[in-house]
Parts: sequence; C-alpha cells; structure tokens
Amino acid sequence: MKFDYECVVIGAGVSGMSAAIYLKRAEMNVCLLEKSAPGGQINKTSTIENYPGFTGIGPDLAMKIFEQVTTLNIPYEYADVIDIKKLESGFEIIATNKTITSKKIILATGREPNKLNVPNEDELTGRGVSWCAICDGPLYKDKVVAVVGSGNSALEEGIYLSNICKKVIMLNRSKRFKGSKMLQSKLFEKGNVEVMYETNIQELIEKDNRLDKIIIKQQNQQEELKVEGLFIYIGFTPDTQYLENIGVLREYNYVIVNSKLETNISGIYACGDIIKKNYYQISNAVGEGAEAALAVIAELENN
Amino acid sequence: MKFDYECVVIGAGVSGMSAAIYLKRAEMNVCLLEKSAPGGQINKTSTIENYPGFTGIGPDLAMKIFEQVTTLNIPYEYADVIDIKKLESGFEIIATNKTITSKKIILATGREPNKLNVPNEDELTGRGVSWCAICDGPLYKDKVVAVVGSGNSALEEGIYLSNICKKVIMLNRSKRFKGSKMLQSKLFEKGNVEVMYETNIQELIEKDNRLDKIIIKQQNQQEELKVEGLFIYIGFTPDTQYLENIGVLREYNYVIVNSKLETNISGIYACGDIIKKNYYQISNAVGEGAEAALAVIAELENN
Repeated sequence: MKFDYECVVIGAGVSGMSAAIYLKRAEMNVCLLEKSAPGGQINKTSTIENYPGFTGIGPDLAMKIFEQVTTLNIPYEYADVIDIKKLESGFEIIATNKTITSKKIILATGREPNKLNVPNEDELTGRGVSWCAICDGPLYKDKVVAVVGSGNSALEEGIYLSNICKKVIMLNRSKRFKGSKMLQSKLFEKGNVEVMYETNIQELIEKDNRLDKIIIKQQNQQEELKVEGLFIYIGFTPDTQYLENIGVLREYNYVIVNSKLETNISGIYACGDIIKKNYYQISNAVGEGAEAALAVIAELENN
Repeated sequence: MKFDYECVVIGAGVSGMSAAIYLKRAEMNVCLLEKSAPGGQINKTSTIENYPGFTGIGPDLAMKIFEQVTTLNIPYEYADVIDIKKLESGFEIIATNKTITSKKIILATGREPNKLNVPNEDELTGRGVSWCAICDGPLYKDKVVAVVGSGNSALEEGIYLSNICKKVIMLNRSKRFKGSKMLQSKLFEKGNVEVMYETNIQELIEKDNRLDKIIIKQQNQQEELKVEGLFIYIGFTPDTQYLENIGVLREYNYVIVNSKLETNISGIYACGDIIKKNYYQISNAVGEGAEAALAVIAELENN
C-alpha cells in the first residue's frame, strides 16, 4: 500500500515542531497537523526565561520555531484529528476535514490546564495568571502570590514558590489537601505560606492589563485578596480523546511511552506534554520531539 | 556542616548551563564550573539548524545561553576537576586550583570525539569535518561525503547520510566492519554507498578555508578523494576520569543514570553527552539539564 506520508506528526507545539524538523532534515516524507495556531501552550505565556538560547522571550518563540518548519518546507496542514485506524503496515488518520494515511505517527497534541471558569481568567493568562511555577515563579520574586489547588502539584508548586516569593497564599476549595502528607508538612513548615480552606475564587480583577486582586468567598464571606500572581493547579487535560478507538495506553489520560518514546501501539510514538513524565517543560519537550523523530527514522530504515 | 553550595554543576556546555539556569531560578545556591570556554562541543560546530528556536546558528548559541547564566548572576568559576570525595551529607570537589564543597553535584562534562590525528583535522572541524551526521548531514545534501569508522555509529550515520547525500564513501581501516550485520546489509543495499577497506586517511586538504580533498592510503597506494564532507566515527571519549575514585557507575566510560538522572551515588546526578543514552543532541541535552536540576531541587527540599 502507498501511504500519503512516512510519518505524520499530530500537533504543532514545540515538541511536534521539533520532531518534524528532525524528520524532514533526514529527508523523511513528513507532515505536521495542527487544529489551532502553531506553538501550543507557548502562545499562552508571557515571558519564557528558562529555555536555553533566549534570555527572555514570549510567544515569539513559537513563531521562531515555526519559521524553521517553513524554511524546511515541511507540509503543514489544518486538521482536527478525531480518530486513528490501524492499517496493515501503517495508519489512517481521520480528521474532521480529511483522511490521511501514514506509516508512522508521532502524537504531540499536548495538554490544556483545567480552568477555574471565573471572569477575566482567559484575559489575564500570562499577565499574572499562570499554571507553571517553574516557568513563571521567578517573575514574582519577593511578591505575593496565590496558588489554587489541593493535590500534589499545588503543594509542590507552593513549596517551590515559597523559596522565591515574599508570601504564598494557598487557596483550597475543600477542608483538606488531597496531596501527600509529606508535601503538606513541608509546605506548612515554610514561614511565608498562608493556607485558606473552603475558599472559592469568584472573580479576577484586572488593573493596567495585569492581575491585581482575587475575589474569594470563604464560608459565605466575600473577600478581596491583593496578589500579583495566581498559579492554578487544578489539573490538566491531555488532548487524547482521538486515541480512544485505537487503544493507545494512557494513565489519567497521559500517554504511556517506553524509553524510545513509542506507545503500546507499534508505530505510534508520543512526545511533549501529552506523555506521562516528571516535568513538563519546553526544554524537555524539544528533546523528546528530537528523540521520537530519531526513533521513527531508525524504524523506517528497518522496514 | 556548612557547604559552599547547595549544588555544583561541573561543565558549562549546553546541558550544564541549562541545569544551572533552572537551579538559580529556583533560588538554589548554585555554582557552575568549567575548565575551558562555556558552550562545550557547540564551539566546534559551524551551523546548527536543528535546535528549536534558531533557523541557523553557530557557536553563537553558546554565548546566548551563557548570557542567560550571567543575567541570572550564576557564580561561574574556572576549575579543572580531578577528583570528588564523599562527605557525610555532601561532597568535596577537588580541582587543580581549588576545593569546593557542595550538597549535590550535577555532572555535565560531556564527551570529546576521538581524532584521526592527521594534518588539518582541527582546522577543518566545522568546515567540512564533522562528527554528527544528524546535525550536519543536511548541509551536504546532494554532495559527496566520506564516513570513517567501522562500528555501529559509522554504519548508522552512513545509512542516514545516504538518504541525503549524492554519494557516501565509507572508509574502513580494517578488512571488515565491526558493527552489526543488519546495519551492514542495510548500508550495502543503498545504491549510493561505496566502501573502501584497509584504507587509512593520511591528510586533509583545504581549499578556501573548507575541506576539499582527503589523501588516503590503500594497500600502499596513495590516492586523493574529492569530498565536501568527512564524518568521523571512531568513537568518543566521555570526560569522566575524575569519577574514578568516587566510583560513579559507567559503561564504556559513559555515566549510567536512572530515570531521574541520578547516578549510583546518591546526590550525584548527570546530564548531557556524558550519560549513556540513545541520541546525543543539543535538544535533549538542554532537556536533561532541566530535568536533573528539577530532580536536585526536589531532593534539596526533602533534606
């Protein structure tokens, strides 16, 4: 059977673009699919200071990487993928607007942070509202920030921020934290951490185009909290619905890969924020994109 | 005991600098040690086209990352490390010119490609002479290149280059290849690969500041080969001599790490080209730097 492509990369965030660059430079017949703008989550950041090569950059980084994609003439198509079907020696990728066949697939559709769904949340994302303490924490050095969430991520990032910020206010919707007892003790030991239980965020207030205050409700009392940053840790949703039928193995919706970044389905690889891993950073997403591509290149040589 | 630093990163290549950036942004007391110029192997490349963010860049990338290091005021010291000693809850790092104590260590001293030791080899490195087909191969699209070596790396890179270049001449010093039979068959199947056995390179000839010809000797016959690129795959030497005494586990001198990038010695981590892994790329070196640093940060929080 003749396939449209040797490898299709689904998702043009930094990891997918990195994979496509490696594949194309190896003269592989590759195509990059995306249902939104190239860059993924980068487009929702303000300042990136921890990606080696740039002292400070924002969503511009997405455009710089996309420039590499276009310089290499990598086919780039709009496609909202809804299903993948197994063929004899490859796959059929079914999007809302087209069907594409490919010998190999690299999944790079990433994940979306869950939202509070309160007024001004979208508008202030990257302007005080963040979901990555490691990325954005240092921008709030010696400032007051709030963290919303109750699980391990909220606790870990609260501890991380307590070393950088003047004060960290933990906002917990319930009466206790769901995360590990050890992380809780560590957080509570910090001298600059305040915890508010049974607290719901009602609205975010903006001033000069940045987050200025949070309106919270605690036991029917409405209150205003003045903070410069709000870190939201109420979970992420990996974009993996289209993997239901083909049966790619997942855990809490994150795709499970082996050391070669291959999934349980031979010929389907994954990289970036979609996979289950310890840290979700631009730096490791680009590395995984390269590694997934190099594994696919080696595999294509074997067939 | 009071330590000089919470974490010392040995080696200021891209991976070590990435680790130091992550540590410092988390407000850790970090120091970066280097015995040469910052940047490591990048300083010996000409054009880097596969690092996401830059359509084309050279040793400049090292300076850009080093600018991040200096912007963050990360202590950067000259030190040629010769030994590491275990202390009760940390380490003593012994350099030729000083001794430094640290709770944790990240090893990032990389590796050096083995040399042919022929005239003009150093001068032409990055100007026709390369040791990374994945990095530099596409610069030789539709051109004639030679690969020297006999093991799996030489075979793999020969196959990789055969998909890109007009012709690949394999130069083998002995009568046969040491690499896997499967890779040999795959290479020999390629229509544009020529193999020369019992061939020694005598000298590299330069023209207009780039590689122009290779002088080879085959069964006492001297010959000139006109090639635009020469890829040297006669092994690499990881810089790990200073790890002898402390007993960091290695394989062919590459440091063995677990999924958290920790070595067999608790508190010593490693990242970048010094570790045993599938692919040696800038893209994954920066990711590993970030991951090693984040693992150290989590560990320091636990103590």
